[in-house]
Amino acid sequence: MFSYKRQKESKIGVPPGTVIYTGDKDDEDPIHLTFISYDEMNFEKKELENIEDFFQLRNSKRTNWLIVQGVHNVEIIEKLGEKMNIHPVVLEDIVNIFQRTKIEVFDDILFIVLKAFKYSTEKNNKLVEKQISFILHEDTVIIFLEDKIEFLKHAINRLQSSYGRIRKFGSDYLSYSLIDIIVDSYFTLLEIFGERIGDIEEELIDNPTKETLFKIQQTKKDMIHIRKTIFPMRETINTIIRGDSPLIKDETIIYFRDVYDHTIRIIETLESYRDMISGLLDIYLSSVSNKMNEVMKVLTIIATIFIPLTFIAGVYGMNFLYMPEIAWEYSYLVVWIVMIIIAILMIIYFRRKKWI
Amino acid sequence: MFSYKRQKESKIGVPPGTVIYTGDKDDEDPIHLTFISYDEMNFEKKELENIEDFFQLRNSKRTNWLIVQGVHNVEIIEKLGEKMNIHPVVLEDIVNIFQRTKIEVFDDILFIVLKAFKYSTEKNNKLVEKQISFILHEDTVIIFLEDKIEFLKHAINRLQSSYGRIRKFGSDYLSYSLIDIIVDSYFTLLEIFGERIGDIEEELIDNPTKETLFKIQQTKKDMIHIRKTIFPMRETINTIIRGDSPLIKDETIIYFRDVYDHTIRIIETLESYRDMISGLLDIYLSSVSNKMNEVMKVLTIIATIFIPLTFIAGVYGMNFLYMPEIAWEYSYLVVWIVMIIIAILMIIYFRRKKWI
Amino acid sequence: MFSYKRQKESKIGVPPGTVIYTGDKDDEDPIHLTFISYDEMNFEKKELENIEDFFQLRNSKRTNWLIVQGVHNVEIIEKLGEKMNIHPVVLEDIVNIFQRTKIEVFDDILFIVLKAFKYSTEKNNKLVEKQISFILHEDTVIIFLEDKIEFLKHAINRLQSSYGRIRKFGSDYLSYSLIDIIVDSYFTLLEIFGERIGDIEEELIDNPTKETLFKIQQTKKDMIHIRKTIFPMRETINTIIRGDSPLIKDETIIYFRDVYDHTIRIIETLESYRDMISGLLDIYLSSVSNKMNEVMKVLTIIATIFIPLTFIAGVYGMNFLYMPEIAWEYSYLVVWIVMIIIAILMIIYFRRKKWI
Amino acid sequence: MFSYKRQKESKIGVPPGTVIYTGDKDDEDPIHLTFISYDEMNFEKKELENIEDFFQLRNSKRTNWLIVQGVHNVEIIEKLGEKMNIHPVVLEDIVNIFQRTKIEVFDDILFIVLKAFKYSTEKNNKLVEKQISFILHEDTVIIFLEDKIEFLKHAINRLQSSYGRIRKFGSDYLSYSLIDIIVDSYFTLLEIFGERIGDIEEELIDNPTKETLFKIQQTKKDMIHIRKTIFPMRETINTIIRGDSPLIKDETIIYFRDVYDHTIRIIETLESYRDMISGLLDIYLSSVSNKMNEVMKVLTIIATIFIPLTFIAGVYGMNFLYMPEIAWEYSYLVVWIVMIIIAILMIIYFRRKKWI
Amino acid sequence: MFSYKRQKESKIGVPPGTVIYTGDKDDEDPIHLTFISYDEMNFEKKELENIEDFFQLRNSKRTNWLIVQGVHNVEIIEKLGEKMNIHPVVLEDIVNIFQRTKIEVFDDILFIVLKAFKYSTEKNNKLVEKQISFILHEDTVIIFLEDKIEFLKHAINRLQSSYGRIRKFGSDYLSYSLIDIIVDSYFTLLEIFGERIGDIEEELIDNPTKETLFKIQQTKKDMIHIRKTIFPMRETINTIIRGDSPLIKDETIIYFRDVYDHTIRIIETLESYRDMISGLLDIYLSSVSNKMNEVMKVLTIIATIFIPLTFIAGVYGMNFLYMPEIAWEYSYLVVWIVMIIIAILMIIYFRRKKWI
Repeated sequence: MFSYKRQKESKIGVPPGTVIYTGDKDDEDPIHLTFISYDEMNFEKKELENIEDFFQLRNSKRTNWLIVQGVHNVEIIEKLGEKMNIHPVVLEDIVNIFQRTKIEVFDDILFIVLKAFKYSTEKNNKLVEKQISFILHEDTVIIFLEDKIEFLKHAINRLQSSYGRIRKFGSDYLSYSLIDIIVDSYFTLLEIFGERIGDIEEELIDNPTKETLFKIQQTKKDMIHIRKTIFPMRETINTIIRGDSPLIKDETIIYFRDVYDHTIRIIETLESYRDMISGLLDIYLSSVSNKMNEVMKVLTIIATIFIPLTFIAGVYGMNFLYMPEIAWEYSYLVVWIVMIIIAILMIIYFRRKKWI
Repeated sequence: MFSYKRQKESKIGVPPGTVIYTGDKDDEDPIHLTFISYDEMNFEKKELENIEDFFQLRNSKRTNWLIVQGVHNVEIIEKLGEKMNIHPVVLEDIVNIFQRTKIEVFDDILFIVLKAFKYSTEKNNKLVEKQISFILHEDTVIIFLEDKIEFLKHAINRLQSSYGRIRKFGSDYLSYSLIDIIVDSYFTLLEIFGERIGDIEEELIDNPTKETLFKIQQTKKDMIHIRKTIFPMRETINTIIRGDSPLIKDETIIYFRDVYDHTIRIIETLESYRDMISGLLDIYLSSVSNKMNEVMKVLTIIATIFIPLTFIAGVYGMNFLYMPEIAWEYSYLVVWIVMIIIAILMIIYFRRKKWI
Repeated sequence: MFSYKRQKESKIGVPPGTVIYTGDKDDEDPIHLTFISYDEMNFEKKELENIEDFFQLRNSKRTNWLIVQGVHNVEIIEKLGEKMNIHPVVLEDIVNIFQRTKIEVFDDILFIVLKAFKYSTEKNNKLVEKQISFILHEDTVIIFLEDKIEFLKHAINRLQSSYGRIRKFGSDYLSYSLIDIIVDSYFTLLEIFGERIGDIEEELIDNPTKETLFKIQQTKKDMIHIRKTIFPMRETINTIIRGDSPLIKDETIIYFRDVYDHTIRIIETLESYRDMISGLLDIYLSSVSNKMNEVMKVLTIIATIFIPLTFIAGVYGMNFLYMPEIAWEYSYLVVWIVMIIIAILMIIYFRRKKWI
Repeated sequence: MFSYKRQKESKIGVPPGTVIYTGDKDDEDPIHLTFISYDEMNFEKKELENIEDFFQLRNSKRTNWLIVQGVHNVEIIEKLGEKMNIHPVVLEDIVNIFQRTKIEVFDDILFIVLKAFKYSTEKNNKLVEKQISFILHEDTVIIFLEDKIEFLKHAINRLQSSYGRIRKFGSDYLSYSLIDIIVDSYFTLLEIFGERIGDIEEELIDNPTKETLFKIQQTKKDMIHIRKTIFPMRETINTIIRGDSPLIKDETIIYFRDVYDHTIRIIETLESYRDMISGLLDIYLSSVSNKMNEVMKVLTIIATIFIPLTFIAGVYGMNFLYMPEIAWEYSYLVVWIVMIIIAILMIIYFRRKKWI
Repeated sequence: MFSYKRQKESKIGVPPGTVIYTGDKDDEDPIHLTFISYDEMNFEKKELENIEDFFQLRNSKRTNWLIVQGVHNVEIIEKLGEKMNIHPVVLEDIVNIFQRTKIEVFDDILFIVLKAFKYSTEKNNKLVEKQISFILHEDTVIIFLEDKIEFLKHAINRLQSSYGRIRKFGSDYLSYSLIDIIVDSYFTLLEIFGERIGDIEEELIDNPTKETLFKIQQTKKDMIHIRKTIFPMRETINTIIRGDSPLIKDETIIYFRDVYDHTIRIIETLESYRDMISGLLDIYLSSVSNKMNEVMKVLTIIATIFIPLTFIAGVYGMNFLYMPEIAWEYSYLVVWIVMIIIAILMIIYFRRKKWI
């Protein structure tokens, strides 16, 4: 379960517009700044020591890309905000890692907040959410990563090695390709989910236990959390497609329409998973009740066969002095035969009722 | 269950706009190209060796129809895209067989993705989904089939043998008649579904077992999958009706309105099936609990009749030296009478309670 | 249950625009044509031999009304279509009895499809749906009935006997009064439904059986079917009210607004019935579980009272040679007293627990 | 349960626009007509003998208010309609007491239908619905009451005794204050509902019985009925606020906005009650199943303790000649000790399992 | 449970527009008036004796802030209304503490009603709702608190100690910062809720009891109440963002957009909590049924093992004279062996069935 506890605690009571990091304070890793600058011909990549270097290296004739790994250093964010003329509310949103997926359209920048998911292997296979925010400027894209996420390496290598379409387009196409990577990662997430649902289903058929119920509940909770995060994606990307911002050029919009389609597909798949998970619970409940039925049937059969027989035995265990059958030589044999016949009749009855 | 696993796997990490086939690679069947060209007077049909033939045979005075069976040959698709001036994103969508049902309106073409369903007899009666995409051009319709689907043969024969209305109309009417065939096939699917629901219902009345539950669940899952696919049909065909594209002539729109009505009818029927399936689960659960009740009643009746009688027998099995009844001559007889009366009274009581 | 099977079967694979009757072929009754023509002063009614008579008798100065009973004679429909200039798609919809409730607005005609319901006394009290379609023309109303429905007789008589408002108005008012009759018949249907729900409710209180469950399920299915049919009525009549067609005069719209209100009321009542039916299932399930509880309680009481007593009897049935109590004169009496006390204590305990 | 039976029966088959009373015919009370006329200075109140008096007394310089108690006298309604130029469809709606809550905007009048609820003390505490309809004219308000409802007395007294704001405003403010009274009465209804839900909740905690289930179901049905009636209030009052009619002056709209807020609050409270009622059913079901569990536990404990002990006693009740323990002097004592130990061990086991 | 009883009682039957306090009358605390006036340079704070002081101290060149603690003194509110030209309907809403969350846009003022929640430590940890209403004027903000709420102290101190952004902005920014405080307090509420849900979940795993069910139900009811209150926040703040009122300056709207985002996040979290709570009930029900299964299994195992053995013992307890086994020397031993074998076989059977 994603923990909602503590999530605004550190911000409550703070004057609005104050840039405060809301994540865990103990990861004191320094912020990593990576700067990439390219056009159709050139490609340059540099690890920056400090944020001032970025303002010097930035080249308005190329597409500039700044990757900020870690958002807990508030100073760097504030300097960026000052130089790039970013509204304090946006800066606040960058460092507050509990934002919703959203887009904000300003005159000269687009601000986008997305979420990446992964199943943390360290934290007992828990679902971990990481915030990724973009600032899209005329000639610059700044991406803020909450975490050192490896997924950008691949994108950078591709950018470096190719000359074609990718590098010809500007900062809007770069944003598109980054959003596309994140949306693609949701498909991977859905696959894991699909497999989980399949596994639970098999477990339900084989041997449902109380643990299965908690697995269903856990999957449901993860699902609720993911839905809450991915649903606003639809509106976010739709805002881009509608062409509200001049920063997204017309020829790039068709690519965003493709991402939009993927998002719809993800949402629809999530919805159908939701229906399936609620179906799992129904199966669980009937499996449990089926199991109980089986147990009850065994009890009933054993008890209903032997209770009458035990009664007969009890009758001839009575100590009355005048019991004519007692003295008859074949009584014992007859009683056994009677008892066996009763047992057989009962078994036939149960067979006919389809209880055995 | 339609498998969601692996569905984008082969595309993740690939630069956007790359045309990659996402289906199973092992069916290495060559692509079949069929070319049909007709007007009110003439009808020509040809199997093409390669895609270049199509560009030569294409006749702008007639309606041209190219059927591409199999979409795993990326080269052919790319050549088509180049010559017909189709955007790379569309080409990508043609070969990616995990598209949503959708329509894309461009200036000179309409791009439509639909899905056909069948119950595969090979794959253990599993529901199989096949993608069909259309490119509608001024004088040309190109249809891409994921599979060798026989359903077009009938349409081609009809086109060949008739001179009337069908061949007088242009490429928009041809698209209409192809979409109509697919929508009609959904009715067949609904019939199979209706029968399945009816069968399950009868099984529930006769003898519900654990298998019935899994059948209900399977039907529900197929339903979820079909709904997800057919629901966007409404919006897709509505886009055509709204007249957003000049490629669809006014006199053809009334036919699409008819298809739209069919789609609504399919969706409404699906919705009512959904309600019925959830009703099935309710019946299943109460059938199970009814069965359990019956079992319980038998146990109760047997146990409640014999437990007191066994107690009486037990009393007279005690070995006390001073038990006055023991020695009385008619004790045994009286005890039997008492026990029979108790049994009869209990049976009457159960009758009155309507347990027997 | 309304059967969805076979419903498009006979049309699949047929070229679109072909006028084919989709009902059962075995009712080979001839089509009945009734022609009525009236204005404020005159009233004429005639059974027609063939459709040509209609074209001769039609009088553009009066309101003309043609009643076509039976739609399986495709020729008559096609002739009508030709002479009245009706689009083939409309003709196709008239003979296809599986249409949705809908309205189609053309330049010179309005085409409306409605459904009438009745509980067939022949077919084991099954819900039967009959299609009624209207063509509303400037001076003519053509009504197509799937069945010989008696309900029009009353309307015709009223028309004949009155001179006032009804005959002063034109073809739009005639359509209104026919639609009003059909909507009123839905109220009758709702009454039957209300009674059914009430009956089931009483049965649930008295003695719920497995049959009650199937009655609930049957009612639910009929409800699903009726909802699916009546819901589009709202949109259909709303289209008329919006004044999209010049064929409906302004002074008639207020009457349609009244029908619209009735439709909304029917839909709301249906919705509340739906809630009630789902409530019935809840009662059923708890009645069943209540009944089981009662059974269990009796078993528990009998068993828990007698099991300890039987144990005591068993103890003194043991054959140990050295059992001091055996030989004591009052042992038997004391054991009886002890057993009675135990039984009484248990009964008190159960009373306190409110189990008896 | 509000009875839906017979509700349109008497109207079916009647020509539309005919003014027919649809309530019970047996209450043959004469209609009471009360006329009130006021302006800032003057106040006049009179019981009218017949409807003609109203037309004479009506004073276009004052605000005129006619209260019609009882709507079964069709003649009076028709005379009113004629003189006031009211459309026949409206007259029909006034006397048909099965209208929906609604508003109809005409050029010179506003027609509003509302419903009042009360719990009839005569009819076994059943929920009774009474129709109230308004005709708002430039200088006149006519209110039609299905029943002699006392609630207006208070409003009349207030009007008579005050000179201020209330009498300065015109007919629109009068309508507002009447609607406000009705909406306020819904709050009283909600209170009763809240108390009912609270009572049921307590009953569920103390001792849930089958009667509790029927109370829940009854409350649910009343709720369904009330929702159906009150929901259209929102739209009705919204129509007034939107300023569609010139009869409602701008300075009065703010008061209607207040009523609108109350209506929303009532609807929201109804919605939350609905959630609570469905919660009640869940509690009921688990209470029942909890109770059953308790019963089962007692059975299990008694049975599992005594069944093995009875077996032991049974063993030493066997009549074998060679049973070495039988003759041993301390056997009886040892058997008792063994049996007590077994019983204690079992009780410890149950304690550990938290069954006792 | 928040009590809906008595909530409009004291207002029913009162002429509309009358300013009447609807809270509990017994808290006769005097009203506290605090006046704050500031601009970028100056800051003044004063406790006022009476409301006249406010009109003298108010300075149109500064931002004026009046805090009214307690709304039961109707006179003060009426005087404020008179001097500030506030509509009587607004005054009525201020003192009626059962308002919905809402905004009313007038020409010269904005009127906003919000709710604060806290868990009352006095009232047995019950959820308590307190109404807070704002009047936003050109240069003045008046805040009406139902309760002495401490949360404003912090805001006042911050205002006093800072010179920057906060005090430069006008009355609209002041309103924003107050609304922000309230919205932040909802996050705290959500945290408490999240913890409660977590606690219940753990209890369900450890040992679910009847109390757990009532906790779930209580949490659900609080949830229903909170949702009802917070949902209209969305629309309220959206009205501000849309720029309907000239009182909210353009540069402040971006801050309100931030609050809007928080509100959406709160609503989404509430929705996901709702899903989780309904999940809890499912777990509860299956935990109960799991527990019952376990109990049943123990009964079945004990009973099915010993019932046949007791039967055997019963057989040899019969007193027939001719029972050949009785006299055989090893009978007793053989019977024991047979009984032990039967017991072992049964235990193996149960193991195989996975019942043990």
